[in-house]
Amino acid sequence: MGVESHGIDQLQTPALVFDLDILRSNISTMASVLPGSHLRPHMKATKCTSLAREQLRAGHLSFTCATPREMIGMAEAGLGADLLLANETLDAARLSAMAKLQDSSMITVAIDSDETLQAVAKAGIRNVLIDVNVGLPRCGCTSSDAGRLADKARKLGIHVRGVMGYEGHLMMVLDKSERLAKVAESMQLLSDAAQDVGGTIISAGGTGTYDLHADTAVTEIQAGSYSLMDTQYAQHGFPFRQAAWIVGTVISSNSSWSVVDVGLKSLGMDHGNPTIDSHSVWFCSDEHTTFSTPDGPPPSVGSQIRVTPAHIDPTIAMHANAWIISDNKIFDQWAIDLRGW
Amino acid sequence: MGVESHGIDQLQTPALVFDLDILRSNISTMASVLPGSHLRPHMKATKCTSLAREQLRAGHLSFTCATPREMIGMAEAGLGADLLLANETLDAARLSAMAKLQDSSMITVAIDSDETLQAVAKAGIRNVLIDVNVGLPRCGCTSSDAGRLADKARKLGIHVRGVMGYEGHLMMVLDKSERLAKVAESMQLLSDAAQDVGGTIISAGGTGTYDLHADTAVTEIQAGSYSLMDTQYAQHGFPFRQAAWIVGTVISSNSSWSVVDVGLKSLGMDHGNPTIDSHSVWFCSDEHTTFSTPDGPPPSVGSQIRVTPAHIDPTIAMHANAWIISDNKIFDQWAIDLRGW
Repeated sequence: MGVESHGIDQLQTPALVFDLDILRSNISTMASVLPGSHLRPHMKATKCTSLAREQLRAGHLSFTCATPREMIGMAEAGLGADLLLANETLDAARLSAMAKLQDSSMITVAIDSDETLQAVAKAGIRNVLIDVNVGLPRCGCTSSDAGRLADKARKLGIHVRGVMGYEGHLMMVLDKSERLAKVAESMQLLSDAAQDVGGTIISAGGTGTYDLHADTAVTEIQAGSYSLMDTQYAQHGFPFRQAAWIVGTVISSNSSWSVVDVGLKSLGMDHGNPTIDSHSVWFCSDEHTTFSTPDGPPPSVGSQIRVTPAHIDPTIAMHANAWIISDNKIFDQWAIDLRGW
Repeated sequence: MGVESHGIDQLQTPALVFDLDILRSNISTMASVLPGSHLRPHMKATKCTSLAREQLRAGHLSFTCATPREMIGMAEAGLGADLLLANETLDAARLSAMAKLQDSSMITVAIDSDETLQAVAKAGIRNVLIDVNVGLPRCGCTSSDAGRLADKARKLGIHVRGVMGYEGHLMMVLDKSERLAKVAESMQLLSDAAQDVGGTIISAGGTGTYDLHADTAVTEIQAGSYSLMDTQYAQHGFPFRQAAWIVGTVISSNSSWSVVDVGLKSLGMDHGNPTIDSHSVWFCSDEHTTFSTPDGPPPSVGSQIRVTPAHIDPTIAMHANAWIISDNKIFDQWAIDLRGW
């Protein structure tokens, strides 16, 4: 299908679509709050180098990744000015592949243990951040162990750029003043570690806490979902609007319910069911979502509707491409080119 | 990486693995209960033509698909002796692509409305089944409308091979006698429709009800998950064993919890958290699962563990390849080549 002069009704479904006007507005809004290096956009949410270029144009040169594949793909796309793998890996082959990129790209890898330090040292990774646990039971050393690990890294000739810590357990604290207080408390662990570690970077945060670090020591925020949004983050009332949907076709309909061809294989389900504006979602199957239309007649078979995912990150990873729309016209296609590991 | 002589500990993670011995045992067990055309293996669960060849070797020549991509991929792989799209589509381009396969493959498409009939007729599809709603609120016409739709199809020169109906709402009724009674009741709707429709095929069922159709009119069962299994279907105590896992590497560990690099992007989450033998799963993030080890020391950083998905179908669709293992040795790689739509 040629991408010009086609209406959105020509899409083969299920189809991931991004509204470029809203996407650009979200990126611009974020860049006004966290300009340039104050934001290190997280590629795990969007996995798309074309979208990263929009963030680059808004002034962000440094990016966060969750997988070696995201790191390598960003570097290969010419977006490697300052890439952080904000995650641990013991994979010698993938660490070596990232190390090979260091002549043309700036590669920094998080470490949180002697084992992950040894792995990056062996691969020849030159820059690390010490990943500090700030309350989410996931990766990160204790705040009190960060200095020791940094010293050990420096003895191996590795440059320690600073610390990172992800307060993921606080993203969905819905009361803003409570969220602010808890973020401050969590970030105290990180600034304590930063004192011991040294370096210039204190990296943390996400879309849920992007506006709560003015009084913390944090130097950069790792937010990604803000550009596309989802129904869970929408609960916060942020100045970011929904920019991504799965467009589906109604394939069956009766007086009680209708069925759209968008299901478990095109929607991340860990935050629950998707939503459909003006309709009530009943449940999802592999290739279907069943819904009813409480106010008004059911949609006709063959009509298109937009399904809004509850969690954008795993949803994006299920699609090979996104259709870029503006004013309900399709005018580009972006590859979701950072999928996999 | 060469695939010979490597132990499973050489896998790059997260990695989807199939145990070939267990997979073949599951396929053989099912073929003894539902030999040859009594089983129409469903490709939506496995999306892998190499796995379909194992089912072919066990005597099954006809297959079920949920998407045009699965239909076309199966035909192109030479597995097109009798392919059923057990789902509705209005997509003219994809219907035409399927119609073009009809010189070398047998293509049958489900219809449940005048609109879906018109779409298949326009594309030149020669064979249909009438999809009848048997209680699951999803696709399918009413039992009483099936005969009318079949007559209308025949007037358009289309061959109506019979009926299908999926009792998906009964797959997880855990009491077997209750499940049996409800399946019988549900299948009465289908056999009533079959009386009106004619043809030779009455297609229904899934892994959850594969052994409950001896006294129904059903001529073939559409089961797919049985070959790989998952923790949800394991609750039934079927003679099928778990054959698929996501192998991960422990990337962080302390005295309270550990983290493996298997997360929301490698696990279907609609049936809840995965399980890890001898460990207790806490929660999953995009690229992580956090778990504890109640009895014994935590696993060491760098060690591998197997994560068992709660729902196999969407899990498989997240992976480009599966590693085929036997006795913990890797000896083949199969493409999950039927992904997408």
